[in-house]
Amino acid sequence: MPYELFYHAKIQGRGEFVRLALEDAGADYIDVARGGDAGTAAMFALINGEDVARPPFAPPFLRDGDMLIAQTANILHYLGPRIGLAPDDDASRLFLLQVQLTVTDFIKDIHDTHHPIANSLYFEEQIEAAKLAAAKFIELRLPKYMGYFEKILARNPAGRYICGGGITYADLSMFQLVQGLRYAFPNAFAKVESNYPRLIALHDEVAQRPRLKAYLASERRIPFNEMGIFRKYPVLDA
Amino acid sequence: MPYELFYHAKIQGRGEFVRLALEDAGADYIDVARGGDAGTAAMFALINGEDVARPPFAPPFLRDGDMLIAQTANILHYLGPRIGLAPDDDASRLFLLQVQLTVTDFIKDIHDTHHPIANSLYFEEQIEAAKLAAAKFIELRLPKYMGYFEKILARNPAGRYICGGGITYADLSMFQLVQGLRYAFPNAFAKVESNYPRLIALHDEVAQRPRLKAYLASERRIPFNEMGIFRKYPVLDA
Repeated sequence: MPYELFYHAKIQGRGEFVRLALEDAGADYIDVARGGDAGTAAMFALINGEDVARPPFAPPFLRDGDMLIAQTANILHYLGPRIGLAPDDDASRLFLLQVQLTVTDFIKDIHDTHHPIANSLYFEEQIEAAKLAAAKFIELRLPKYMGYFEKILARNPAGRYICGGGITYADLSMFQLVQGLRYAFPNAFAKVESNYPRLIALHDEVAQRPRLKAYLASERRIPFNEMGIFRKYPVLDA
Repeated sequence: MPYELFYHAKIQGRGEFVRLALEDAGADYIDVARGGDAGTAAMFALINGEDVARPPFAPPFLRDGDMLIAQTANILHYLGPRIGLAPDDDASRLFLLQVQLTVTDFIKDIHDTHHPIANSLYFEEQIEAAKLAAAKFIELRLPKYMGYFEKILARNPAGRYICGGGITYADLSMFQLVQGLRYAFPNAFAKVESNYPRLIALHDEVAQRPRLKAYLASERRIPFNEMGIFRKYPVLDA
């Protein structure tokens, strides 16, 4: 039975971290909400339906038989060992989850550069706050997070990956971070990319993995746009 | 060997969710950074030391023998089964982690009411943005999250807890959320408390648990203050 991924149909967003894992693994899955209005309705029925025993708070979530699993990092923690994208030992799996949760925090900071005050207000309504938030993000948060991930790569004795000697879901997340930062902050990120040689090399290696390369060239990869986490607003890219 | 918890010595913050679990379980632990300057130095040595194989990004983190585990929800996911605060089956443990990660998201939203633009700026430098952020938080995010947790309690067929028939670490987190919201938003939260009868009943039950009650009355419980997640700024409490 295929995995069923439930996420918004028109953005990469948090769901993309799960899509990358499923695609790289060649897993059999259905991207339910991309199946049209009925798919989107099925997604909201699982969030709002009164007969769902353990409903998710928000997309993305994954259905695997009787299991309904929400929260991006939790989904990847569950999926990783099943699709060959996590190490075998429990200590490594916890470390991988820890890194992915740090990605979650970073993504929230990235999102909040364009929506610092409230997600319920338009970008245009909070643009002055966003300019200051983005400047502080570029100055402090971006180097702190990216420096951390670079350090993790440097400390791994087994190879050029986040954890152990092979690719895991966290490596795919590193790829996505580089892609997204290049999209959202082309000027600011270009200035500092050379500080993260291991991350860039990992990004380049991931991009050449056959199944992922095919995915990225396909219509299944939704282009970056101004509805997701990473948004190209030149006014925020100093 | 006692667990070693590493977290800032003068705030409840994210570390408090781990402290509550350790205290309620009667676990043998050391709150390292509260042991004075040497404890704080030991904490930063684990973050910044060049010989740490898998360094954390930030506190809180827990050391258990060879294991060094960061990210609040990850720590609780690890600790829960070891200290009797998680169910036995894997599906329930994943659900518990999912709920705790939703707590993580909620806490970030709560924190960002007083620091919407950047943590590196003073509250006073972003007070106008904070007023708007807090108003939107009270209007939209607070009821969305608290309504979700109330729903989870209502859907649990086994009892009045988040998951299964007994107390888990997520129930202790619900207690802490109610405590914190009462502290930070005494006016706004008082107006809506009656919408969450199960959460309030759970809070009251947790507060009476003998070990937790003793902890809350002790000097080990750091009082809420204006350096943590929950801050009492009347200007933000409409």
